[in-house]
Amino acid sequence: MKPVPVPERFAEFEDRLPRAIEWRDGDLWLLDQTRLPAEAPMEHQETAADVFEAIRQLKVRGAPAIGVAAAYGLCVALKPFRDSGIDVFRQHIDEQAAFLDSARPTAVNLGWALRRMQAFAVRSQAGSGAELYDALTAEAQAIHAEDQALCRGMGAAGAELIRPGMGVLTHCNAGALATSGMGTATAPMYVAHARGVPFRVYADETRPLLQGARITAWELDMAGIDVTVITDNMAAHMMATGEIDLVITGTDRVAANGDVANKIGTLGVAIIAKHFGVPFYVACPSSTIDLACATGAEIPIEERGAEEVTQFGARQTAPQGVKARNPAFDVTPHDLVAGLITEKGIVRAPYAENLASLFGGTL
Amino acid sequence: MKPVPVPERFAEFEDRLPRAIEWRDGDLWLLDQTRLPAEAPMEHQETAADVFEAIRQLKVRGAPAIGVAAAYGLCVALKPFRDSGIDVFRQHIDEQAAFLDSARPTAVNLGWALRRMQAFAVRSQAGSGAELYDALTAEAQAIHAEDQALCRGMGAAGAELIRPGMGVLTHCNAGALATSGMGTATAPMYVAHARGVPFRVYADETRPLLQGARITAWELDMAGIDVTVITDNMAAHMMATGEIDLVITGTDRVAANGDVANKIGTLGVAIIAKHFGVPFYVACPSSTIDLACATGAEIPIEERGAEEVTQFGARQTAPQGVKARNPAFDVTPHDLVAGLITEKGIVRAPYAENLASLFGGTL
Repeated sequence: MKPVPVPERFAEFEDRLPRAIEWRDGDLWLLDQTRLPAEAPMEHQETAADVFEAIRQLKVRGAPAIGVAAAYGLCVALKPFRDSGIDVFRQHIDEQAAFLDSARPTAVNLGWALRRMQAFAVRSQAGSGAELYDALTAEAQAIHAEDQALCRGMGAAGAELIRPGMGVLTHCNAGALATSGMGTATAPMYVAHARGVPFRVYADETRPLLQGARITAWELDMAGIDVTVITDNMAAHMMATGEIDLVITGTDRVAANGDVANKIGTLGVAIIAKHFGVPFYVACPSSTIDLACATGAEIPIEERGAEEVTQFGARQTAPQGVKARNPAFDVTPHDLVAGLITEKGIVRAPYAENLASLFGGTL
Repeated sequence: MKPVPVPERFAEFEDRLPRAIEWRDGDLWLLDQTRLPAEAPMEHQETAADVFEAIRQLKVRGAPAIGVAAAYGLCVALKPFRDSGIDVFRQHIDEQAAFLDSARPTAVNLGWALRRMQAFAVRSQAGSGAELYDALTAEAQAIHAEDQALCRGMGAAGAELIRPGMGVLTHCNAGALATSGMGTATAPMYVAHARGVPFRVYADETRPLLQGARITAWELDMAGIDVTVITDNMAAHMMATGEIDLVITGTDRVAANGDVANKIGTLGVAIIAKHFGVPFYVACPSSTIDLACATGAEIPIEERGAEEVTQFGARQTAPQGVKARNPAFDVTPHDLVAGLITEKGIVRAPYAENLASLFGGTL
């Protein structure tokens, strides 16, 4: 499978997208996404504690974005030791990495990015704190650039699916703001838009935390894409009336057989899409495909606090003391998935064979 | 089709259910449902203006409940003229009925109940204002009793569907508080509960107005039924994990071919239920079946204000100025409906034939 070329016009468009993370002149800035859509403040991260809190409080969220923020965050944490001797500088690396890693214990990309930075430092021959600091910032920028390239790859691979006049449904936020680039599910939309294809997006609001209404609608609107917010329970009606032609969502993990774990509500969207003959696609970097996980049945489903369902902000919406369930994810079986949009191209059924080939490089 | 007998134990249980409407010693009391679930105030309706505002502000809602409230409301409106002469009393009837009817122009039961009260007065031979007032209150009580009997009939017909240990999903509120009795979709649940059948109910919160979380969960909890609130997008996951065995919803209108219009989100639930082989039932009095409406395609779908979707109470959840859709209803095709639970029994496919027979009395 050959990499799909990204259109030349795209680079210019990409520069204008909203960003979760910026590295400017040696300083890290993060968008506080908890304040969307009312405000969109870029906050300067002055200390390791700032970055720790930003990750812990979900100011920066989405697996790829957390990884990139953590890599830069380690640079922020080590900057005060830049002019110390190399031995003193090295002494702080593991300590600061462990501190940042504890901000969200279950975020896989957080630990992955920090371990990569630590391993890089171990291999480095740098002779001074300043030299190692500069090398580490370059490595963080490499992680950032790789994430952006993965997004571009998904965008180029999936953009062909979006034809003029289509209505495209997405669920939750697998957007630019969940990555350091142009997102996963949104990447095909941004590429199609940059190419001048006219289409509409419907953003499921995505209860209970409303990432679709708050974040996806905001970033698509900022990018000039025609976006309409709907409640999660409207998707079936919109498909029945012919307003939705395509679904693209993100995913947290894909099993070896093609089963897809994603934000709660994705399974319902996939079933309804199948009923109406609307193709349901999932976008993810190939690193999200876990060949060690045989089927979706092996993926644990996190159950979050009931108060996210029974309250809305400070307001109680269900009776005090009434039970609520809050599974944060569901698993969509592979037979409902039309294709997986990866940076290496679109993978289709039979998934067990084709996903194995993707990693074997023989696809 | 013979009426299904209601269990003797039920009357005692029914008396303990939450009530939307009470007529006590010649006074009308309405539950202010807009304040659920935080508060549940019963408000004394002292004037026609009180009743008008209660209907207009949705303090009382649900087609059957609005009809009963309007019939009693006309009595409240006429009480000041009780000791006037019969001619003066009669002069006020049409005027007060027209005033109440204007509270919600599209509520079918509102006009129906008021016209029935007006026609009753025209036929009445009463010789004084007091006599006609007493006869009208008796007629309002008859409308109330008939509504309660319809609910009992649906409850008795549908209770057999609920077997021990089942999980039952419902959407929106087609409950006791939408009627003057034990509800439509909830009636089988209340009868099964009164019979001692153990089961669990899952209440979809029902965005955007949250009638499921605010009202259904409250009334089932008050009645001692095991109820759990879920967001609308969790139903598929709960069916995939085997926690839901049966769906019962209400409906606003049933077409002659069995297509069902109901609160937005019902169609999605029906499609997902079919996917998992979970039976999807709809409860309604036979008066909701509109043989003059050939198919669901003829039922207009009300589109409400976008702010119900983009705001939550006073809080903006989607970006200012971003578009939103807000269809209030959807249409579920008859082939997804396992049966219609009516006061005359359960009607199943083929609907065109069986619904015609229901009204012909030959079923």
